[in-house]
Amino acid sequence: TRKHKIAVIPGDGIGKETTPEGLRVLDAAARRFGFDLELKHYDWSCETYAATGKMMPDDGLDQLRESDSVFLGAVGWPGVPDHVSLWGLLIPIRRGFDQYVNLRPCKLLPGSKSPLAGRGPEDIDFYVVRENTEGEYSSVGGRMFPGTDREFVSQQSIMTRIGCDRIMKYAFELAMTRKRKKVTSATKSNGITFTMPYWDERFAAMAKNYPEVSTNEYHIDILCAHFVQHPDWFDVVVGSNLFGDILSDLGPAVAGSIGIAASANINPEKTAPSMFEPVHGSAPDIAGKWIANPIGQIWSGAMMLEHLGEKAAADCIVQTIERLLGEGGPRTRDMGGQAGTVDVGKAIAEAV
Amino acid sequence: TRKHKIAVIPGDGIGKETTPEGLRVLDAAARRFGFDLELKHYDWSCETYAATGKMMPDDGLDQLRESDSVFLGAVGWPGVPDHVSLWGLLIPIRRGFDQYVNLRPCKLLPGSKSPLAGRGPEDIDFYVVRENTEGEYSSVGGRMFPGTDREFVSQQSIMTRIGCDRIMKYAFELAMTRKRKKVTSATKSNGITFTMPYWDERFAAMAKNYPEVSTNEYHIDILCAHFVQHPDWFDVVVGSNLFGDILSDLGPAVAGSIGIAASANINPEKTAPSMFEPVHGSAPDIAGKWIANPIGQIWSGAMMLEHLGEKAAADCIVQTIERLLGEGGPRTRDMGGQAGTVDVGKAIAEAV
Ligand SMILES: CC(C)[C@H](C(=O)O)[C@@H](O)C(=O)O
Ligand SMILES: CC(C)[C@H](C(=O)O)[C@@H](O)C(=O)O
Repeated sequence: TRKHKIAVIPGDGIGKETTPEGLRVLDAAARRFGFDLELKHYDWSCETYAATGKMMPDDGLDQLRESDSVFLGAVGWPGVPDHVSLWGLLIPIRRGFDQYVNLRPCKLLPGSKSPLAGRGPEDIDFYVVRENTEGEYSSVGGRMFPGTDREFVSQQSIMTRIGCDRIMKYAFELAMTRKRKKVTSATKSNGITFTMPYWDERFAAMAKNYPEVSTNEYHIDILCAHFVQHPDWFDVVVGSNLFGDILSDLGPAVAGSIGIAASANINPEKTAPSMFEPVHGSAPDIAGKWIANPIGQIWSGAMMLEHLGEKAAADCIVQTIERLLGEGGPRTRDMGGQAGTVDVGKAIAEAV
Repeated sequence: TRKHKIAVIPGDGIGKETTPEGLRVLDAAARRFGFDLELKHYDWSCETYAATGKMMPDDGLDQLRESDSVFLGAVGWPGVPDHVSLWGLLIPIRRGFDQYVNLRPCKLLPGSKSPLAGRGPEDIDFYVVRENTEGEYSSVGGRMFPGTDREFVSQQSIMTRIGCDRIMKYAFELAMTRKRKKVTSATKSNGITFTMPYWDERFAAMAKNYPEVSTNEYHIDILCAHFVQHPDWFDVVVGSNLFGDILSDLGPAVAGSIGIAASANINPEKTAPSMFEPVHGSAPDIAGKWIANPIGQIWSGAMMLEHLGEKAAADCIVQTIERLLGEGGPRTRDMGGQAGTVDVGKAIAEAV
């Protein structure tokens, strides 16, 4: 039987509660669709940091490299600054494994409620394809004249030809698999006049290779407005690290699914493991109460299976989520129900 | 009688149609509230560029400097690249006159329709205070290794102590004039780790001076989501040039007022003229048909009067707009009516 090695990092807060439910459903899918999952657990988290001074061991990436995929819960905890927690675990994995695609589905699921008036599942169904290694999240910057009136900080946004071309290629290839075959580019070349015009240039160049795909581009300000006013316009949206980050929170917000959104950090060439994580964070306010919604984690598990070649199992999980939500199955408080994290996980696992 | 000198730049496209209606209402307000407006018209636009190779004359800023305020329509036209049109007229005025505050009200007006379900005028009423001179819109950047696989572009985001402190001060002072006295800061210090942590630092420092003002901060991704999910949470939102740009399109979109939103580019110390313009652009698709909605322009005129010390007149215009919309007065097609640009302008002018 096919075997997939999974590194599991529950991380912090509700990550510890949602990850087991994700695994429960993955396990059910493995049994039904006839493949094996070999799990390896890592307790790397802000607690590790408190105990050891490091979020993960120095050879952390090497340890993970033995797996086919990383299944992550959430990273971050009050008292540990982001530059320690996120930049000590999440970001090094994304970059170290060249997971240059951050893929996030924006979907209005049946039974979940969009804050928009009069929108149904047929209106919101698109992907945000986010560049995940360069752009505005750069390591080049600094501060001058500290403590004086002349004080300033500077940070470079960097876009490379390689970085732009490969993310755009991914977006166009994804569009080719979809019915509408449409790619929208997020830009701001009218205000950010060195990097963004280059982004536009590479987008136009890549579009030439895909004559069947229709394209358009919007400045990020009006694009955000269109997400609210016309979510039905979008099929595949490609954006830089920052713009993709913004759009992939706004998209699920518009679809009413921000608590349950999934994401994949993908190395498409599989030269290193990819990583799958829910969009939500560690949610310290509800951590420990076992009321967190595990659907984002479970959905991320489905994206992982798809990446590992288990498409039938992946589709089954997503359809099961949609069906249970549509039929009024158990739901957590954020979706207006009373169920706990485990109830929802069990219901989905059993149905799978 | 009090006299105010206004430089009028209709600019391009529908700017030429909305500006006269803005002036019509300003004129009515002047007569009713007893002040004089001395207008000076400038035809600077993409047509000027076609004829002269320049968007405005070399001494353009000097010419405008004689006025108390600039009343602008819209800038930009297909065929003229943004770096020519915007960076030849709009941006040089903002920077040359140190209009470091870009102020944009986000308000659900009675009778206008928010795309959000179940939201009324009491739910959406806040200001976006945008830094308007530095940050991500910088002039420092370039390209290396053109045409090769090593090609990359780089652009610096620059935040100065002076630039951060003065925009934050403005936001806190504005909050002090409002009932809720709350300032929200837009950040992204978990991802953009040189500039944004400094922004946070200056925000915290300024907050200390305003113990009566409550504060919070959100990363821009989740903040955009909150704009959609909880627009009622916000009172005054302060952001960098880019984040403020995004939020001040998203805010009006959420309020259903993007076609009618107003904006002020303010030099608070009045060392140079301030500039008032609608948020919408030149709208080439409807230009020449006289169906554009003039309310954004008229509302911008009200903001101008407030800046010039004519608060009663400013309030009267805004209240008249709200009243006419609430009573089902004439409205343009974008608001579901049949009226033309001039009809709406005349109705508001007469009611004032
Ligand atoms: C036209 C463009 C440069 C401008 C900006 O981003 O500042 C516009 O979007 C605005 O908000 O006034
Ligand atoms: C935690 C933060 C650095 C991260 C990001 O901006 O990439 C998060 O917002 C995300 O989208 O995964």
